[in-house]
Amino acid sequence: MADALAELKERMAEVTDLAAVLRLLSWDLQTMMPPAGIVHRADQAATVMRLAHELLTAPRTGELLEELRPVEDTLDPESDDAALLRVVRRDFEKAVRVPSSLRADMARAAAEGRSVWVKAKAESDFASFLPALERNVELKRRYVDCFDAPGERYDVLLDDFEPETTTAEVRALFEELKSPLVALIAELRDREVDDAFLTGDFPVERQRALARDVVDMLGTRPSSWRIDETEHPFAAGGGVDDVRITTRYDPNGLESLFSTMHEYGHGLYNHQLPRSLSRLPTGQSCSLGIHESQSRLWENLVGRSRPFWRFFYPRLQATYPEQLGDVAQDRFVAAINAVRPSLIRVEADEVTYGMHVMLRFELEQDIVEGRVELRDLPEAWNRKMWDYLGVEVPDDAHGVLQDVHWSGGSIGYFSTYLLGTVMSVQIWEAARRDLADLDERIEGGEFGPLRDWLGEHVHALGRRWPPQETLRRATGSTIDAGPYLAYLRAKYVRGR
Amino acid sequence: MADALAELKERMAEVTDLAAVLRLLSWDLQTMMPPAGIVHRADQAATVMRLAHELLTAPRTGELLEELRPVEDTLDPESDDAALLRVVRRDFEKAVRVPSSLRADMARAAAEGRSVWVKAKAESDFASFLPALERNVELKRRYVDCFDAPGERYDVLLDDFEPETTTAEVRALFEELKSPLVALIAELRDREVDDAFLTGDFPVERQRALARDVVDMLGTRPSSWRIDETEHPFAAGGGVDDVRITTRYDPNGLESLFSTMHEYGHGLYNHQLPRSLSRLPTGQSCSLGIHESQSRLWENLVGRSRPFWRFFYPRLQATYPEQLGDVAQDRFVAAINAVRPSLIRVEADEVTYGMHVMLRFELEQDIVEGRVELRDLPEAWNRKMWDYLGVEVPDDAHGVLQDVHWSGGSIGYFSTYLLGTVMSVQIWEAARRDLADLDERIEGGEFGPLRDWLGEHVHALGRRWPPQETLRRATGSTIDAGPYLAYLRAKYVRGR
Repeated sequence: MADALAELKERMAEVTDLAAVLRLLSWDLQTMMPPAGIVHRADQAATVMRLAHELLTAPRTGELLEELRPVEDTLDPESDDAALLRVVRRDFEKAVRVPSSLRADMARAAAEGRSVWVKAKAESDFASFLPALERNVELKRRYVDCFDAPGERYDVLLDDFEPETTTAEVRALFEELKSPLVALIAELRDREVDDAFLTGDFPVERQRALARDVVDMLGTRPSSWRIDETEHPFAAGGGVDDVRITTRYDPNGLESLFSTMHEYGHGLYNHQLPRSLSRLPTGQSCSLGIHESQSRLWENLVGRSRPFWRFFYPRLQATYPEQLGDVAQDRFVAAINAVRPSLIRVEADEVTYGMHVMLRFELEQDIVEGRVELRDLPEAWNRKMWDYLGVEVPDDAHGVLQDVHWSGGSIGYFSTYLLGTVMSVQIWEAARRDLADLDERIEGGEFGPLRDWLGEHVHALGRRWPPQETLRRATGSTIDAGPYLAYLRAKYVRGR
Repeated sequence: MADALAELKERMAEVTDLAAVLRLLSWDLQTMMPPAGIVHRADQAATVMRLAHELLTAPRTGELLEELRPVEDTLDPESDDAALLRVVRRDFEKAVRVPSSLRADMARAAAEGRSVWVKAKAESDFASFLPALERNVELKRRYVDCFDAPGERYDVLLDDFEPETTTAEVRALFEELKSPLVALIAELRDREVDDAFLTGDFPVERQRALARDVVDMLGTRPSSWRIDETEHPFAAGGGVDDVRITTRYDPNGLESLFSTMHEYGHGLYNHQLPRSLSRLPTGQSCSLGIHESQSRLWENLVGRSRPFWRFFYPRLQATYPEQLGDVAQDRFVAAINAVRPSLIRVEADEVTYGMHVMLRFELEQDIVEGRVELRDLPEAWNRKMWDYLGVEVPDDAHGVLQDVHWSGGSIGYFSTYLLGTVMSVQIWEAARRDLADLDERIEGGEFGPLRDWLGEHVHALGRRWPPQETLRRATGSTIDAGPYLAYLRAKYVRGR
């Protein structure tokens, strides 16, 4: 039995290595690769994906899992080995339904789609993106067909990003959020906010240096992080000691600062995953929702809070004296928390953000169920933007082409942004219960206590448990719209 | 039969993809990876190496080769398929002798060794490098043990870098070179050369821009190259449209210019390999010797020639007016061709260069045959430097630690530098026979004719033939010390 377990671990270590290689290839594609290299990259990613899939789904994996079934029942469910067997069994049972050639085709189409999207977005040309989108959607539909899904077809895709979470559950949560958010937006949208000073001349070189300083200040182990620039910021890397985040510098605004804190949250999660399990599936991140709870926590609960700016605003003023020298701290904090319906999700304020996600969640279901023609997506997008946020989309670069996800075949992914946002408030409040002086620490520039708390209560759990069980262990509760809505009301209506 | 051939090609395409992934992982390690990431990278490289090795050596590969044996005899030996079967059969027969676990251990030790070497070199601390070297050498010895080599043990290693070339053949060639080179060095070493102006203030930013200009000027297809900075310059990449070269900028000298032209030569070879075979072993580079013939040709036959500088010197003067404004072209060309025994191989002039390589070739044989203790390598190195070049080595950073190769397990590699240098002159002369006005073209800044000639006569052959047959097809002759020695005498003694 010990032999079978060791063999299974070695096999899963190789699968995990290949997953890291795929992340690195994707990082390279988005940051470093000469654009013409895509012809090779698509094949390389497809081959690595195919081999990873074959290692996972080989008959030998099934034999080992069968052999280990009696052991599994005797193990302490809290043990690492029990968690490993749970996770591998689940991954195996899903993966064996999918031919490795389809997996390889999906990896190839994703690599190609990303590179097509960059150009299409730059030229705001949806038509040039459509064939790549059609290819990715067709493959996703074939992927869904591999499963005898008892529920909705979209469940299959959602489960890849947010395990053991159903479309119906997400829909119910979003319905609970929708009316209060719409009401809140209506209440706040016409408030005058003095934030003209956030647009101006913010030299990119200074932003770049500041991004490095912010990441160092929030805290990392030495020689293990890097920051690059991409069209769509993201976090990736090779493991707990190879953390790579990206950001995007707008010479006329400060968005990169919040984007950097956001990606820092993702990076810190990767950085504090359980090192002893780093080559096993249990040592990876739990779900995209949990991942996003970490990025949103650092971006918003820390990065748009008064205590943080009491500490950091003098430094920011010193960096941009021409722009901010005469702007008082309260004015600045009010400006970065202005509520204003806008076009771009990643730049949206905390209140309107949810509507951007709901729009995508609904369109994704329409796509998967075949209720919308792909060529009609821009129109459907623009209509919903008008209905939900009252904004008019001037072109597809600011509409349906703004996000990278669909181009890389990540369909079923978007709802996790709002799930994560909701969970971020629950996690934040749990941290505050445990760390009574958290605000004072942040005001003093001490981020270690929060890092450590997150490390212990969230990151160290890795993928041992599904996301809702992970959240319950960290906070005492599964996902709940209440704290998020209460937080928004307290902050934006009562100004606390 | 067609099915078997298609299956073999698909299998070899995957092996080729994984080889490209390994090159990219190594490039990333040397250019981008946060240093702490090495703990992950070693495992990732080992896993990819193991899988590539298993794909190549699987019983199915052998079955396919057997099945295809009757076809092979009927194919035109000039055909792509015949070449593929020759090359795969050879690779398979070598690879099946080596356990995939040993291959994985070698990849892991190479990744770890490289990262140890960077630090050891920076601190000139051979002792801290010794354990990594011992590990790599031990693995190489176990690798040699896998073969029933009829000849010398070193043959096994040499064959990996320069196929179908024996230690005895290289030794004979080097013996032929040694006395004439020693005599030439003695004749030239005390000549006064006025080259003090090559040391001074050459701002790195200008060097960086110049390197990009030089690569563009020598010629590439758009969106397919990048240049980075590393301690040890190299060329790598993901395929014909993903070419990556590196260089190193010394703020007090111009070496990066020659290093860039050198790596351009490597990059151009990768760039012009046969696209239709890009996912097959036959579409890869032929050998390290042939590779080096391309880099040395651009660095020396082009980059240190009078016609090139007639064209490019005004541009260089305009880049560094403070340093070179008052230096006449003839003085400059004489200075960059000064013959002066020195410590560092990659900075050595054309005449002394060979002695650096012979030294390493001899030490490598001593290492493999166990005739030298690894801890005694610095002393052995320093003694030979004195014997061959009359220079004293001040520290190991300028001695035994100067090259990256041994740290990455590349033992058996060094002789290819001199083989390539000798071949570069043969190839250059063949190009000149075909392109009567080559000097005039270069003097006019036209590099297309040379690029195209090399593409057609050398690069397009890929790995279809072993290196000596490739050279014979390109030049009409196998390797010959004569043209190289004649070139050196003509240029350095008769000043032509």
